[in-house]
Amino acid sequence: MLAIALFGAGRIGRIHAGNIAASPRARLAHVVDVDAGAASDLAARHGAAASDVATALADRDVGAVLIASSTDTHADLIEAAARAGKAVFCEKPIDLDIARVEACLSVVTDTGATLMVGFNRRFDPHMAALKAAIEAGRIGRVEMVIVTSRDPGPPPRDYLERSGGLFRDMTIHDFDMARWLLGAEPVRIQASASRLFDPGAEAAGDHDTAVATLETAAGQLAVITNSRRAAYGYDQRLEVLGAAGMLRVANPTATTLETTDPAGTLVERPLDFFLERYREAYRLELEHFVDCVLDRVPPRVTGEDGRRALLLADAAYLALDEGRAVEIPD
Amino acid sequence: MLAIALFGAGRIGRIHAGNIAASPRARLAHVVDVDAGAASDLAARHGAAASDVATALADRDVGAVLIASSTDTHADLIEAAARAGKAVFCEKPIDLDIARVEACLSVVTDTGATLMVGFNRRFDPHMAALKAAIEAGRIGRVEMVIVTSRDPGPPPRDYLERSGGLFRDMTIHDFDMARWLLGAEPVRIQASASRLFDPGAEAAGDHDTAVATLETAAGQLAVITNSRRAAYGYDQRLEVLGAAGMLRVANPTATTLETTDPAGTLVERPLDFFLERYREAYRLELEHFVDCVLDRVPPRVTGEDGRRALLLADAAYLALDEGRAVEIPD
Amino acid sequence: MLAIALFGAGRIGRIHAGNIAASPRARLAHVVDVDAGAASDLAARHGAAASDVATALADRDVGAVLIASSTDTHADLIEAAARAGKAVFCEKPIDLDIARVEACLSVVTDTGATLMVGFNRRFDPHMAALKAAIEAGRIGRVEMVIVTSRDPGPPPRDYLERSGGLFRDMTIHDFDMARWLLGAEPVRIQASASRLFDPGAEAAGDHDTAVATLETAAGQLAVITNSRRAAYGYDQRLEVLGAAGMLRVANPTATTLETTDPAGTLVERPLDFFLERYREAYRLELEHFVDCVLDRVPPRVTGEDGRRALLLADAAYLALDEGRAVEIPD
Amino acid sequence: MLAIALFGAGRIGRIHAGNIAASPRARLAHVVDVDAGAASDLAARHGAAASDVATALADRDVGAVLIASSTDTHADLIEAAARAGKAVFCEKPIDLDIARVEACLSVVTDTGATLMVGFNRRFDPHMAALKAAIEAGRIGRVEMVIVTSRDPGPPPRDYLERSGGLFRDMTIHDFDMARWLLGAEPVRIQASASRLFDPGAEAAGDHDTAVATLETAAGQLAVITNSRRAAYGYDQRLEVLGAAGMLRVANPTATTLETTDPAGTLVERPLDFFLERYREAYRLELEHFVDCVLDRVPPRVTGEDGRRALLLADAAYLALDEGRAVEIPD
Repeated sequence: MLAIALFGAGRIGRIHAGNIAASPRARLAHVVDVDAGAASDLAARHGAAASDVATALADRDVGAVLIASSTDTHADLIEAAARAGKAVFCEKPIDLDIARVEACLSVVTDTGATLMVGFNRRFDPHMAALKAAIEAGRIGRVEMVIVTSRDPGPPPRDYLERSGGLFRDMTIHDFDMARWLLGAEPVRIQASASRLFDPGAEAAGDHDTAVATLETAAGQLAVITNSRRAAYGYDQRLEVLGAAGMLRVANPTATTLETTDPAGTLVERPLDFFLERYREAYRLELEHFVDCVLDRVPPRVTGEDGRRALLLADAAYLALDEGRAVEIPD
Repeated sequence: MLAIALFGAGRIGRIHAGNIAASPRARLAHVVDVDAGAASDLAARHGAAASDVATALADRDVGAVLIASSTDTHADLIEAAARAGKAVFCEKPIDLDIARVEACLSVVTDTGATLMVGFNRRFDPHMAALKAAIEAGRIGRVEMVIVTSRDPGPPPRDYLERSGGLFRDMTIHDFDMARWLLGAEPVRIQASASRLFDPGAEAAGDHDTAVATLETAAGQLAVITNSRRAAYGYDQRLEVLGAAGMLRVANPTATTLETTDPAGTLVERPLDFFLERYREAYRLELEHFVDCVLDRVPPRVTGEDGRRALLLADAAYLALDEGRAVEIPD
Repeated sequence: MLAIALFGAGRIGRIHAGNIAASPRARLAHVVDVDAGAASDLAARHGAAASDVATALADRDVGAVLIASSTDTHADLIEAAARAGKAVFCEKPIDLDIARVEACLSVVTDTGATLMVGFNRRFDPHMAALKAAIEAGRIGRVEMVIVTSRDPGPPPRDYLERSGGLFRDMTIHDFDMARWLLGAEPVRIQASASRLFDPGAEAAGDHDTAVATLETAAGQLAVITNSRRAAYGYDQRLEVLGAAGMLRVANPTATTLETTDPAGTLVERPLDFFLERYREAYRLELEHFVDCVLDRVPPRVTGEDGRRALLLADAAYLALDEGRAVEIPD
Repeated sequence: MLAIALFGAGRIGRIHAGNIAASPRARLAHVVDVDAGAASDLAARHGAAASDVATALADRDVGAVLIASSTDTHADLIEAAARAGKAVFCEKPIDLDIARVEACLSVVTDTGATLMVGFNRRFDPHMAALKAAIEAGRIGRVEMVIVTSRDPGPPPRDYLERSGGLFRDMTIHDFDMARWLLGAEPVRIQASASRLFDPGAEAAGDHDTAVATLETAAGQLAVITNSRRAAYGYDQRLEVLGAAGMLRVANPTATTLETTDPAGTLVERPLDFFLERYREAYRLELEHFVDCVLDRVPPRVTGEDGRRALLLADAAYLALDEGRAVEIPD
């Protein structure tokens, strides 16, 4: 049984708390949050203690920490936990600054700590089935990857101002998908981005609509299309063209009900947003992390994956600003 | 080049006229109709002569006749044409009376005439693909056949009064489908029928909704469900369960356009009615008939197929009237 | 918090035990089974006591019993629990003999006990969405219901011998679906059944393939098609034709993955069997039962629903044996 | 009745010849080809004369010419036909050199000739339905367009060497789609292209896989993904995201047959290539051209559309060569 200390009692922290509590191999030991009331409420719901960082890290029963607090705390908490000998699960991103990320990863390496980064989509059953089909050779060599990723609606302006921008906040998941599905590192990126509908994005100097194109050294291409608004819900699709065929993952719906009437045949719209769409992904991600710690399995998503995705986001901004193709540093 | 005399210049006659005219191996020589104006118009459109029956049958250039006139003329015209040495294509049914059908088929046999009956659905590319998949062994032995057949709306009362009733007018096509897909003769039938919405059916002593269940000697089952109304268009689907899998044919749509919005994802409704749905089936059926005559190929739909379907319709009425399972005579 | 005693620690009992343990408003207090080891194991897994019937019913903390033991124990246990003042959830059927069912329901009525019968499909999100769409008037008056229900493979012969036959064991769920979706009681039934592939069914005097057709007094029709084998998995579909349109529920799949290659586009097959297909239905059914007991809500599936479904099964056998339409007794 | 002279008796010329012959308002008067045998054969099949260019243009009965000869003859033939007072339908491209295109269009303007360019996809019923849905306001303002366009397999190397390269030969159709669906002119383009599988493309200095991203002044984005190979057939899909929803057009299949077996549910693969996929588009395109000439309707695809698509292809090559975003000249 792995005792876990959770840092962050917000929306995503509550998801993880529920999954820890429901896991047959884990228990929630501490909840830490700057909002003491939020920490106590969540701790009480799952029989954990509301603690501060020092107490949680000093608890020798605690084998792992799960970091779901605000982005600017991630790197410090990773380092502190690693130094305290805990395994670490950290929500993306490690930090918005690549130098800070690299410094943090050095500490992780030096301490030998286990670090897993929360690219939850790799655990989504639909997307994992697509990856498994690639690995089973069902479409031969991957030639082109197309990632469609659209939120149901834009976040508030103040969120955008702290987010690092669309490419670092939203596309970062899609960069990880592209790397994962290409099976090779992108070496070059181009980007386009617009402000089409969100005054908040305009005010924050951010964008609401974007396209990024990646190339690997072998010439495989990946295209990511993003929008902060899809009137019909959360739109998360993958398409991979290979030498021998094509794989696609569509948006699951809540039910298979179809209505046929004079207007046509209507099926349900996609699920609303990530909490519904990736509910199972969050659960499986947590189970994998528990397995990593208890069974000493290497994490399927590493700190290096987090760093690579941020490198791509940074390069996307450089490409966008200079209107040119940018080489991805190593 | 096969010269064809067409009897009947109504809706279905015009379809056949167009297909004859467009066929590379046939030409329309005569059009005969009790409505002389209709005959002249249709003849003029395709460079044929408006004639009477005797003239058309006496024309030694005419190799075949196509009978699309009213049902009560079919058997007489088949006999006259067979005796005149012409090949015959006749729209279903041969007659509404089984004794008359059998007498007519005797004449056909005695004269050695080629007779093909217009069960057009066997030529529909979708349905033909399903039949081919059965014959290719894709689902093993056929165990159950389900035929869904619903018209967009009920016909006028006076049509119903001359139609022989739902089972002889509408289900007769589905009986042919069931026989064809079972690959064996049904030996037993049960039936249910209702008047749910059509005052015309009520007035004519007919039904608007029905189910028939067929069994073969080996125990294979077929279910036919009928309605004279489907708010969403013409509904013509097949499903076949076999030992190794299931085959299905859905309603084709005019285009693949999908709209996704907050209400869900909407695709087009089925095509309106048989003239759109079976346009290609009518064309291929005619081509097959031309091949039968010119290349001495046996017709894929025979007079015996017409007789068997009518036997099933008659048995369905007996089953309905007596509320019991009825054995199908041979 | 509702304390529940579970009778039966077999496959279905274990499902319910898990759902009781996971429910926020219920806990598993006792597990009773003729196999003492099975009872102890399951009790231990969820912190319950392995007990006998008398002990469980004498426990004043226990508010409800869940009966998932063998069919021949159902009626006795219902009566004992009702007399002990417990609310009762009983897996279908109450009994295979209609007189015993009616005697049992008298006891339930006399004691005023809450009784819910386990027609789990009503709680399946897909099927419940279809029912809700009917009730919202989306297709107007219901005219025809089509229930497709096929198991992945036949059960063992000894199961069949105790099962009461296909109509009482398998179709009984479909009879409940038909009644529920028609929104009116069937008054008449016809049936066909075959032995096409299962030697066990042959040996047990049972069938492996069947069709039943139901009619209501108003003339609405329902068709149920059953097979004990579907090579592609568990096939559970509904279709309802109404005055204004059609509703359908398809088989959900584990993922939305599609592979397109020279053979075509392949999507996943249906889920394997009822434990996967109806996992969520079992959970929601249990939650509803807990709500019924704690909040004094009337159960959505009653003892009368259980009795009506058995009446239909009995009538189906009479119809089958006598080859005729049979009126359903009240 | 419009008499048409056809220049070019190759694959695409034969398609047009058949559509002219089948049109109720047109007839094929002349066929001209450098291969005299091909011209005579095709002329004979449709009752036309095999002629030379001068004879065809001198024929006062001829109202229009259809140019389906090799690309390097297009501009000269357009000019000659325009000067001879004929209406002109020309297959894309007008020329591979933009200066030559512009000179040719000057002649067209000066002579007042009607010129229509063969961007046949605008007439495809599926794609036209999508465009109509945009114009009907079904998804509000267009924000992003995604054009998927993949050939079943690469053309021969010698074709590639004369083709002007992937962007001018293949993507040119997709550039036209993007302009049409955006409803505004792209002002900026970026491009990526690879040689992943086709030795012929390698040898010819061409590419086999490519992505192009377009932006309008308002910030709308369009993404085109191309491959010269799709193992599963001809892949031609559109997706348009708007403020209020999304429209998509999928690949039509020959039939709706579905096979469900232990491997899953299989539907047919896309149609093989453009002759099958766009058969109806070619027919409707020809009908529109005939209407343009006979009814003095302005063509829905103009010489300017041809020029704009070539400008985009040229800009795509500049963007590719210099690894930067390129502004589109006017």
